[in-house]
Amino acid sequence: MSLTVVGSIAFDSVKTPFGERERMLGGSAVHFSLAASFFTEVRVVGPVGQDFGAEHFAVLENRGVLTDDIERVEGGHTFFWQGHYDFDLNTAHTEDTQLNVFGDFVPKLSQSSREAKMLFLANIQPDLQRQVRAQCEAAGFAALDSMNLWIETARESLLAAIGEVDCVIVNDAEIRELTGESNLARAAREVMALGPRAVIAKQGEYGAALFTPHGFFALPGFPLEDVRDPTGAGDSFAGGFLGYLRGCDGEVDDQALRRAMGYGTVLASFNVEEFGTERIARLTRDEIDERFSALRSMTQFDALPV
Amino acid sequence: MSLTVVGSIAFDSVKTPFGERERMLGGSAVHFSLAASFFTEVRVVGPVGQDFGAEHFAVLENRGVLTDDIERVEGGHTFFWQGHYDFDLNTAHTEDTQLNVFGDFVPKLSQSSREAKMLFLANIQPDLQRQVRAQCEAAGFAALDSMNLWIETARESLLAAIGEVDCVIVNDAEIRELTGESNLARAAREVMALGPRAVIAKQGEYGAALFTPHGFFALPGFPLEDVRDPTGAGDSFAGGFLGYLRGCDGEVDDQALRRAMGYGTVLASFNVEEFGTERIARLTRDEIDERFSALRSMTQFDALPV
Repeated sequence: MSLTVVGSIAFDSVKTPFGERERMLGGSAVHFSLAASFFTEVRVVGPVGQDFGAEHFAVLENRGVLTDDIERVEGGHTFFWQGHYDFDLNTAHTEDTQLNVFGDFVPKLSQSSREAKMLFLANIQPDLQRQVRAQCEAAGFAALDSMNLWIETARESLLAAIGEVDCVIVNDAEIRELTGESNLARAAREVMALGPRAVIAKQGEYGAALFTPHGFFALPGFPLEDVRDPTGAGDSFAGGFLGYLRGCDGEVDDQALRRAMGYGTVLASFNVEEFGTERIARLTRDEIDERFSALRSMTQFDALPV
Repeated sequence: MSLTVVGSIAFDSVKTPFGERERMLGGSAVHFSLAASFFTEVRVVGPVGQDFGAEHFAVLENRGVLTDDIERVEGGHTFFWQGHYDFDLNTAHTEDTQLNVFGDFVPKLSQSSREAKMLFLANIQPDLQRQVRAQCEAAGFAALDSMNLWIETARESLLAAIGEVDCVIVNDAEIRELTGESNLARAAREVMALGPRAVIAKQGEYGAALFTPHGFFALPGFPLEDVRDPTGAGDSFAGGFLGYLRGCDGEVDDQALRRAMGYGTVLASFNVEEFGTERIARLTRDEIDERFSALRSMTQFDALPV
């Protein structure tokens, strides 16, 4: 039926040169599902604490995100992240991470979530990713994100998880670290040899690159004069990307993947314009399509003099 | 008539994880002129020492580059640079720089060089750039490169030089350093306010971005599985870029600038495949056009599902 995502649901305290927020709604599954919600039905799987209130559920539900599989742990506390960004908005500096209810999380998916046609395993421990992947047998297309922590502490599990998905969406530095190969094109080929038929290298402000057996594609980040909070950009990218692929409900060929890269880029760009979920929460599909067209016009060029 | 370039003509000793070379032909004006030579007539202005032999002139002349304005200083030594690259090929580590004949260089352009319709001021001291710019009154389009050294030691001269050209081609970090503005789009706008109508931010393996009053355009670096020596990539980019613009001899509008970005990207990609000038010296126009088409196919996407 829909698109299922498993990942963190969090409170984020973030400071950037352009402002700060205390305990705002965040987390990979939140940013992903809000971005994907413009294209398809999305189900979120993940734990929250007793401190996660109706106003937080409302942000998701106002965008039509299905929250039945959000597990509210009585007496528990929601995952918490605190960090800041300096002059270089590409680098997050973590000050505090409290796993809280995420520490004991065992994914239990409802029948509806298990029946998803598409699945996103956001950046969580790779054994958890594998448990969810195993429960979602109907998902004809699954993608995962990961991070340096898991490459360094759970490498074998991560390699196994990668072997069970169709698409890997990670930062380019992580592709290099995972493979020990400095050349990105070679590194992406090594990741594809593990199973996936698409590898996406997220490159921060530089955009993202797509590697498939048929070739290479890349898009720049959408140029913005006002970037206030980069938190969640990568998950918004993944949400726009997989949401579009699920929503168009067609063959996932290279042309569809390229358009999906465009929608991922657009959703990421809206995400960073304001703090947390503020911008995406009031975004419209028209705004998305307008920026998609603008992105297309920024990347096309003629073969011959006109 | 032609395209004139002023810049360094050098011997480079380079070590990368893929090999090393001693005192091979290099320098910004050399890499630029070889790349541009596929599109138009190029004249090189710059000094060399007595150690610069017929075999070095031959590399340029075999590509049709006009060397009449290369000043050979009897008893002098050619500019020398020694450096290495580690695992991260994006960062050059300088071990030695010997200005030699470049230390006393006073640009004296022949009438033919002065009559150039287009001019490239490669990365040299900005007062020298201004002297050359003043001599080339016929140049309807002039571009310059620069570096952090001049931003830090000759800032006022550099700002004046920028005000006298139509296009700035520098690394993105240098645009940020020059303007003190971390946001690249804003920083590029500030540079345009100084006079240029085009600002190109070179971004290493991530490609290059073009800012004009009409909008933004970006291309990824051409994906290569074998990069052996990045030295000269930026100058090859500039050579492909300005060479194409001069060669097509049409209006320098945004569509022409975009295609020129494509040719710049292609020439840079060939440059880095081998050491120094080795690859470009035996390159063909057919290979260039083939890669240009490939680059185009790697960056285009449909507006609507096909």
